[in-house]
Amino acid sequence: MQIKDKSPEELQELAQKIRQRILEVVSRNGGHLSSTLGAVDLIIGMHYVFDAQKDPFIFDVSHQAYAHKLLTDRWDAFDTLRQFGGISGYTNPEESPYDYYKAGHSSTSISLAVGAAKAIRLKGEDRIPVVMIGDGSMSAGMVYEALNELGDRKYPVVIILNDNEMSIAKPIGAISRYLSKGMAGPFYQKLKRKTESLLEMLPEGATYMAKKFEESFRLITPGMLFEELGIEYIGPIDGHDIPSIIHTLQIAKSMGKPVIVHAQTIKGKGYKIAEGPLEHWHGVGPFDIETGEPLKKSAGAKSATQIFSETLQELASRDEKIVGVTAAMPGGTGLSPLLEKYPERFWDVGIAEQHAVTSMGPLAKEGFKPFCAIYSTFLQRGYDQVIHDIALMNVGVTFAIDRAGIVGEDGETHQGAFDISYLRPIPNMTLMAPFNERSFKKALRFAVDFPMPLAIRYPRGAFMAEDFDVPDYETGRAHLLREGEEVLFVGYGNGVGRALETAKHLEELRPAILDLRFVKPLDRELLRELARRYRQWFVFSEGARIGGVASALEEFFEEEGIEGVTLESFEYEDRFIPHGKTEVVEEHLGLRPNQLARKVAQRLETSSKDGGDGRVYNSEKKSVSKG
Amino acid sequence: MQIKDKSPEELQELAQKIRQRILEVVSRNGGHLSSTLGAVDLIIGMHYVFDAQKDPFIFDVSHQAYAHKLLTDRWDAFDTLRQFGGISGYTNPEESPYDYYKAGHSSTSISLAVGAAKAIRLKGEDRIPVVMIGDGSMSAGMVYEALNELGDRKYPVVIILNDNEMSIAKPIGAISRYLSKGMAGPFYQKLKRKTESLLEMLPEGATYMAKKFEESFRLITPGMLFEELGIEYIGPIDGHDIPSIIHTLQIAKSMGKPVIVHAQTIKGKGYKIAEGPLEHWHGVGPFDIETGEPLKKSAGAKSATQIFSETLQELASRDEKIVGVTAAMPGGTGLSPLLEKYPERFWDVGIAEQHAVTSMGPLAKEGFKPFCAIYSTFLQRGYDQVIHDIALMNVGVTFAIDRAGIVGEDGETHQGAFDISYLRPIPNMTLMAPFNERSFKKALRFAVDFPMPLAIRYPRGAFMAEDFDVPDYETGRAHLLREGEEVLFVGYGNGVGRALETAKHLEELRPAILDLRFVKPLDRELLRELARRYRQWFVFSEGARIGGVASALEEFFEEEGIEGVTLESFEYEDRFIPHGKTEVVEEHLGLRPNQLARKVAQRLETSSKDGGDGRVYNSEKKSVSKG
Repeated sequence: MQIKDKSPEELQELAQKIRQRILEVVSRNGGHLSSTLGAVDLIIGMHYVFDAQKDPFIFDVSHQAYAHKLLTDRWDAFDTLRQFGGISGYTNPEESPYDYYKAGHSSTSISLAVGAAKAIRLKGEDRIPVVMIGDGSMSAGMVYEALNELGDRKYPVVIILNDNEMSIAKPIGAISRYLSKGMAGPFYQKLKRKTESLLEMLPEGATYMAKKFEESFRLITPGMLFEELGIEYIGPIDGHDIPSIIHTLQIAKSMGKPVIVHAQTIKGKGYKIAEGPLEHWHGVGPFDIETGEPLKKSAGAKSATQIFSETLQELASRDEKIVGVTAAMPGGTGLSPLLEKYPERFWDVGIAEQHAVTSMGPLAKEGFKPFCAIYSTFLQRGYDQVIHDIALMNVGVTFAIDRAGIVGEDGETHQGAFDISYLRPIPNMTLMAPFNERSFKKALRFAVDFPMPLAIRYPRGAFMAEDFDVPDYETGRAHLLREGEEVLFVGYGNGVGRALETAKHLEELRPAILDLRFVKPLDRELLRELARRYRQWFVFSEGARIGGVASALEEFFEEEGIEGVTLESFEYEDRFIPHGKTEVVEEHLGLRPNQLARKVAQRLETSSKDGGDGRVYNSEKKSVSKG
Repeated sequence: MQIKDKSPEELQELAQKIRQRILEVVSRNGGHLSSTLGAVDLIIGMHYVFDAQKDPFIFDVSHQAYAHKLLTDRWDAFDTLRQFGGISGYTNPEESPYDYYKAGHSSTSISLAVGAAKAIRLKGEDRIPVVMIGDGSMSAGMVYEALNELGDRKYPVVIILNDNEMSIAKPIGAISRYLSKGMAGPFYQKLKRKTESLLEMLPEGATYMAKKFEESFRLITPGMLFEELGIEYIGPIDGHDIPSIIHTLQIAKSMGKPVIVHAQTIKGKGYKIAEGPLEHWHGVGPFDIETGEPLKKSAGAKSATQIFSETLQELASRDEKIVGVTAAMPGGTGLSPLLEKYPERFWDVGIAEQHAVTSMGPLAKEGFKPFCAIYSTFLQRGYDQVIHDIALMNVGVTFAIDRAGIVGEDGETHQGAFDISYLRPIPNMTLMAPFNERSFKKALRFAVDFPMPLAIRYPRGAFMAEDFDVPDYETGRAHLLREGEEVLFVGYGNGVGRALETAKHLEELRPAILDLRFVKPLDRELLRELARRYRQWFVFSEGARIGGVASALEEFFEEEGIEGVTLESFEYEDRFIPHGKTEVVEEHLGLRPNQLARKVAQRLETSSKDGGDGRVYNSEKKSVSKG
């Protein structure tokens, strides 16, 4: 879309059209709404001043980049937003050459810009990275690490700080408007002369101090922190005033050094119902544009997050030692009511997973019972901290790992595929997973008394399995849900539900079904016994195959010298998993229960044809229901 | 040791004695020298003002805490510093109740202090966490994340910033001494009056601006950054002037809020030869106190780091596209000469692993060939970045993973045990490991042309294997070094050398020896063939058993339906590995070649007694040399 020759009025209309299109599609498909509506004018300014074909456009987290997508050849395709095979909710170079980089996790943008700036300098090209980053992303350590280098090396980079925190915006904005007007006027000039007379008082040679003093003038603006780090600061500006945005970005672009443009925006701008800092308008499901009401009410089955939240509230009301932390995900992790009820015991530390993890260590050492509530994919940010600050000290921090497994429309950056694989090699760690409401409650009760590092994983949304009672948890003890004939289904976490569902599709086969409960430590005694009784095992778990549950079993077989058990894993293959409705993605991966039932039947057929040991079900006895 | 009733002179003498003791032991055992000598006076001050039995003493990285150890019941035991079973080079609560927490990685201290402060507040106790952190540790994002919460919640925490960067110490120090004297004097008063008249010029109601302006006075000191984050700042003070340290810490302690005491120290203080910012005195081997000369010259065999450094220099001289990064380890990773020769292509970003990893992504995207030179244990800090910013984009960044395997005296925080396990599940990653000088050179040449994410791991010190020529690398192709009878030794990386050495101890057994080369992707064709010919496999690799090389082979067997191969892994068991000379630690773990030879022999004996398939070596034919 050619926008460089449009008038201010035309740009204003364009913004209006873009907001309309975003509302239209997000209200139908769900998606990120308020941040992306708030960023429309800034993105128009970016495209007016910079050239997305040549300048790297880097969007932090990139869920606010819908307007960018609409401005770069994806107006019609935007209908498929977040649908399987359709437009991603994040930037994606595989989708469009205008998308420079992938991002779904927060706070990577400035590092990416530094990398891009290095490349541009080495190539001697006339391009400039332009970053858009929200104020929420500024709390992560990565940003500071990147600013630290950027301020030192002074690469030309324009960083648009999209500040939509209403609470701090107003007072700062008033002063700044006054100041930015005053800078060139008589007041500023008088101030300057006064200062110079002050500087004359300094002793001979104190140039360092003089310099600092001069600098202290600029520090009157809210940009001190950045300027201390060597980054120029302009702002705050009104992030919905397109001419002002364009003017400021043109100045920033011309400066030839790193500069932060601090722009204040209103979340949900242009859609009255969603305007303001309302957390629930950040990411939404389909809704009615007129009323703002969600189109489908939640289906009834309680989400795992909800069970976590309710159970932890109940436990925390009885036990003062229970404390907890979230890294900017109070709603997503279910910690909100706890933060409200117990503000002295539950903390939101902002997007700061490293600090969230490590700061819980001493609390455990001091006798408290910390729960670190975090998504599987975000715990990757605190990986070293889990090893070095929790496991090495062997303290009783429980990681409540939400969004373990396929997460649906958010897609490849958010899939909770790796936690089993990356946590299992850590000494002193215990890994467990419940599979229905009652088992989850019991798992959390178990966690409260568990004195060592513990990871409990559970899926996004509801568990697959119905709610029925199960025995209490004991460390490293599995539970055989159902005896069977010849074949064993090993389920871990939500995989138990999948195993149960798969069994329903296998009419005549009666597999035994094991709730593994702990993938570390394993229930060696029971597994040894099961290996004698069942020679064909199938593994159901919602995580990467490599280093996952089946691997744990194979390691066990080797250590125990168990031979002759064949095993097939239904864990995730070795590739990133795309976005889309969870069921559709699972279908694509062949992981729906009816598909798995067919695979089981095929495997058993092959085994018996291969002249297996004769103990497996033969093909006559098997039948697969039409799933 | 009772120090609270000592006079300033006695404390001075004590500092002298402590330095003597540190020199004595470190010159004999090796260890961290210059930072720990520089911190002696500060630590005496800490113990004078605070109570290590009650106040959490938290040392960042904790290699500078030797004086603390000597002051807390470990004077004699200090003889065993860094020896197997002896005193750790880092703080360790298992060693002494005076050590509050473990630390070996940088920048965790402020998060730990925040956690401790939360616990103290909940318990209603009268204790205060006191942190010592070096200026080098301040660049990591974790510190910023923790300061961000600390400044917001204002827990009482005293942070001693041990600033030993000579280059910036002098100018700041001169101004500050002047200022701190001047504060109460006539100059400051006059300055204050002048400012007040300035403030009168401000329009009615601009109180925000007035406040900022007043604050800007304190900003003349180097503490601006901290004060912006809401942390009080005192300093800089002379970190070797014990009375001044005590006085300042007492003030800081009494403030009841978070405060940074900025202390300037001289690295190596008290040992003239090591004084100053000489990188090689940071960590040392045994040396002659009189001359400073190392006691044993390096034994001749080139270290893997040295091979990396030389080869990369050679490659970089011919190929301008080669770029690289280190996170504050230029010497340790061998990147120093490249940083000097090509300052525009090689970067030291400070302790900032996350940024180091991510910033290389765009360089690869733009056509460069980035090498990220990093220790195995520190790559854990950039784990999410490897997944989200490199692997997901599938760009050609090579991770040159140094210190993979057991690292010796640094011990449990530094062992490179987990990289295979945590990298293997990441889609798009290729994992390889060379085993001798020539294979390493070829691996690096291979890396230059490799267009996707690649990890090359290599050990601390020299490879075990002698240098002999090997074929060029091809993606996912292994290399059978030696045909054999019945038994296969699978070696990965330095494990190949260990396999070769182990074979020497098995006189009559002639195992085939495979150089696996790539643990991902595996050489499926060759492995299939080998599985037909060899039914007893032993795996030699220097990493965790869980999710490691043997697991990769077991996953392969399952996928291929290969049965009847028995496999034994000589990887690391599931526990943290203690400190000590590498050979001694290996002996303790049963990983020396003579020990492994005995295990092989035992296994084969058991197999044949068990009535194995008869194809393994029977016990008569085996003999184990006295290792």
